[in-house]
Formats: sequence, structure tokens, C-alpha cells
Amino acid sequence: MPETASLQDLQQAIEQLTNRVDTIERNAGDNRLALGVMAGNLDTMIAAFVIALGATAYDIEVDMFFTFWAVAALRDPKKTAKKTFMEKMFGWMLPGSSMALPLSKMQMGGMGPKMIRGVMKQHGVKSLEQLMKEAGESGIRIHVCEMSMGAMGLKEEEMMDYPNLDYVGVGTFIQLLSEAKQSFFL
Amino acid sequence: MPETASLQDLQQAIEQLTNRVDTIERNAGDNRLALGVMAGNLDTMIAAFVIALGATAYDIEVDMFFTFWAVAALRDPKKTAKKTFMEKMFGWMLPGSSMALPLSKMQMGGMGPKMIRGVMKQHGVKSLEQLMKEAGESGIRIHVCEMSMGAMGLKEEEMMDYPNLDYVGVGTFIQLLSEAKQSFFL
Amino acid sequence: MPETASLQDLQQAIEQLTNRVDTIERNAGDNRLALGVMAGNLDTMIAAFVIALGATAYDIEVDMFFTFWAVAALRDPKKTAKKTFMEKMFGWMLPGSSMALPLSKMQMGGMGPKMIRGVMKQHGVKSLEQLMKEAGESGIRIHVCEMSMGAMGLKEEEMMDYPNLDYVGVGTFIQLLSEAKQSFFL
Repeated sequence: MPETASLQDLQQAIEQLTNRVDTIERNAGDNRLALGVMAGNLDTMIAAFVIALGATAYDIEVDMFFTFWAVAALRDPKKTAKKTFMEKMFGWMLPGSSMALPLSKMQMGGMGPKMIRGVMKQHGVKSLEQLMKEAGESGIRIHVCEMSMGAMGLKEEEMMDYPNLDYVGVGTFIQLLSEAKQSFFL
Repeated sequence: MPETASLQDLQQAIEQLTNRVDTIERNAGDNRLALGVMAGNLDTMIAAFVIALGATAYDIEVDMFFTFWAVAALRDPKKTAKKTFMEKMFGWMLPGSSMALPLSKMQMGGMGPKMIRGVMKQHGVKSLEQLMKEAGESGIRIHVCEMSMGAMGLKEEEMMDYPNLDYVGVGTFIQLLSEAKQSFFL
Repeated sequence: MPETASLQDLQQAIEQLTNRVDTIERNAGDNRLALGVMAGNLDTMIAAFVIALGATAYDIEVDMFFTFWAVAALRDPKKTAKKTFMEKMFGWMLPGSSMALPLSKMQMGGMGPKMIRGVMKQHGVKSLEQLMKEAGESGIRIHVCEMSMGAMGLKEEEMMDYPNLDYVGVGTFIQLLSEAKQSFFL
């Protein structure tokens, strides 16, 4: 700007600045957390839901993206689905529900998860199942990776009831990710 | 704005723009890295501290949040604490200090960590213990998840000496996370 | 600003605001994703490349940083390198190429990866090798951690051909990370 600017000069400068602020606001990302969940262990799942619920308590919206092994943690053991032989075989090997999730360490033939669940209960920490229920009530969205469903032979009919659950491609995750202020993978 | 704006019009436009820039600056996040550490393997811990120290070298402040298995990596083998029988049992199964951490792969009955430590020394890479010491000297903050301490029966009295270590709830991590420019979990 | 501002007052206010917007734009980070890859399992690698390719489809630039076990996934089984005895031993224990990667779960003595590859093919999902080829063609950059190469005795001569691959220190990753809009570790 010249040292003694005219009204027109200033008006022009303000308009340019407004355009730049428009762009910054558009790119800034919402106050939203995009949380990828892949490992599907009891410990990782507890961490994911504790963080997700913690974020909603701070008015941060949360989108969870479930992929690979984590998808099996969403199965409802009381539901069944029609499957091919290969899909059935996969289904048997995967955990039948959140109650059957292994630990990433100290699995000890199934003793580990039982011990952790016991000690957490003793310390007044909510169970994974309670955390998932609260997540649903808090408006936390779960997006399930369609490709993982297919690759592991899992069907929509056998998934648990959850208020905000949908089946999406990886593109949806990328979009959620690129528009979120924070993101990480567990 | 009208095509020929008055001084008042411009003043108003500037004030509106200032408010928007105020909001953007408030939401932008500090030049800070929030680093969650959960797996607690020798390899993950080395990666976490190498990244944390690298970040401080670029004038990025670092907050580390230790949860689940990673908490046991902070134990001091020379310290003891009063525990219940169940807590003692957990304590025996968890690594007694950073020196006892397993690898996430190629553990080979304890040979793997020894080999990696040997080769890293040969290549002039600092040991995990040296990295942790430097982290403390560089002002890197370690926040230990209280819930994990309880769930694994670990006590504050048995944790290593570290200049900037405190015990926090998940809320603190969410806050650190939401105000940091970058964040991830290892 | 005074209630009735002069032309000079407004000019000064605009200049201050411009400086603040300059700073915000400089700190905002490019529309770029920094993706750390460490675990080097078949499932993690597929996830990493599916996300990386998905991001490029949304015009997000991608920098991948390969460290620890993931580095071995970039070996070309047809290439050899001169090594010490210790380096050779390490080389034998590490996967010889992407084709030999284990699963993080359900490895089942090598059956798991074969099954997943089979089912993914059946569902029309591209193989890891096809994904890696497309990543190279899409301009996705791979930065290999020099320290990991050294620690595992891997040599540049035995790495696969990839258009945008270089060998870097952790400082480069920190820089990529701090300038990227999003980042995470797999």
C-alpha cells in the first residue's frame, strides 16, 4: 500500500484480505477427531473408545473408521448370516464379538483379557461394552470399511446394533480425515 | 461492501475481519506434538523417543502420553511399592523396566532385543535409556495415564525419576491433543 | 480503533491484520499427509497404501516414512548386497520382500497371508504389490529411515525399484510431519 492510501486502496486491501481469510477458514478443518481403528484387540479398543468419549466431553465430534481386525469386534454373537464355506471358516477364526477380543500382549491363553477386565472393574473403569454403548448414545459415528468386510467374509446382518453405524469405502475415511482437525490410528 | 465505501463501511469490515482472525488464531493449535505411546515394545519406544527428540530439535514442544503397556516401560527396577497379591502378580508379568522390553517382532526368547541393542550401539545410535535421559533434559513432558496405572496395579513409588512426569486422566490427553498441531499414536 | 477512525488508523489496522494472516498461512501446513509406517505386516502395509492412494485421489500429497520392520517390506528378492555375517543373519530373519510379509494376526504358519491374499483377490481388491506400483505412479513419495537400514543391516542395493524413494534421517520426517496438515503412524 502507498504511504498515504486512498479510500479505494484500503477497500481493495480489505477485499484481498477477506478472500485469504475465507480460504483459511475453509481449509482449517472442523473441531473433529478422525480415529482409525485397525488392530481390534481388547486393549486397543478400550483405548479407542476412552479417547473417543473423552473427546466428545470436550465438544469434539468423533468419527471412527473400523478396518481389518477391528471390524470383527463389532459382531453381535446372537446374529447370524448366510455365508459361503470360506467365509464361515474366516468367521470361526475371528473373534465372535467384543467379548472374545484378545489382548495385544499377555494373552495367556485367554487368561489375560479376563484379568484385565477383572482389574478394570475393580478400579471402577467401564467395560468395553459399556464404553461402546455410551459412544452410541454420545453421537460418536462408526464407519465400517466395506473392503475389510468383504475380505473377511463378514456380513451386515451379523453386526451389532449401533445408532450411528454405516458401511463406507476408503474415500469416505480420507474425506473425514482431511476435514478433521486431528486424526490418528490405533 | 458498496462499490464506493465510506470510512465507516471500511472500519466495520476491518472489525469483522479482525474477529475472524482472532478465532482462527485461537483454534490454530500451538506448534506442539502430542504423542500417544501404548504398545510399550523396545522398537516402539525407541521410535517414540527418536521422534520426540527430533521434534524438539525443530523447536516443536512435545507432550507424550503413556498408556497401557507403555507405562511399565517407565518402571525403575531398583524401586519397590506396597502391593496387593493381584497387583504383585501383574507386576511380575509386566516388564520390570525399559531394559526388559520385548520387541514387537523377532523377540526370539529375548535374543531379539539384545541383537537390536547390539547393532544399534555398533551404528552409533543411542540406547533407549540414553534417549529417555535426553528427553528429560530437553523438556519433553511425559504424562502417565492414571487409569492404566490402576488397571495394571502400578504405583507412583516404583516409577523412574524423570524431570517432567505427571499422572493424568484421559481428559488431559484430549486437551493436549486438541491444542497440538500434530498428534499420533505409537 | 477509535469510534471515528481516520484513513491512517484504518491503514494501520489493515497492515497489522495482513501480518497476522501471513503468519497463519505460513503455519497452516500444506494439504499433505505424512504417513509413518513401522509395523511392516501385510495388513498394515495394505492399509497404508490404500490410504495413501485414497488421499492422492483427493489431491492430497502423500509422504510415507518407512521405519523399522516396514523397511524390510521394500526389499527386492532378486537383488543382493555385500554384507557382514551379522547383517546376513538379520537379513535371513527379516522378510525377503513384500511377498513374504506376515499378518499381525492369524499368521497360522503362513496360511493367514495366503488366505487374505486369496479372499482379497476374489473381492477384486488389488494386491499389495499392485498398490505399491500404483503408489509409485501416483507420485507418492517413500522416505526410508537411514537409522533403521543400519540397525537391520539392510543395504540400498537390495531395495526395490520405486520412482520416488530416498534415504533420510528422522529430521526429514519431523519436517514433513510438521508441515503436513494430517499425519499418522501405522
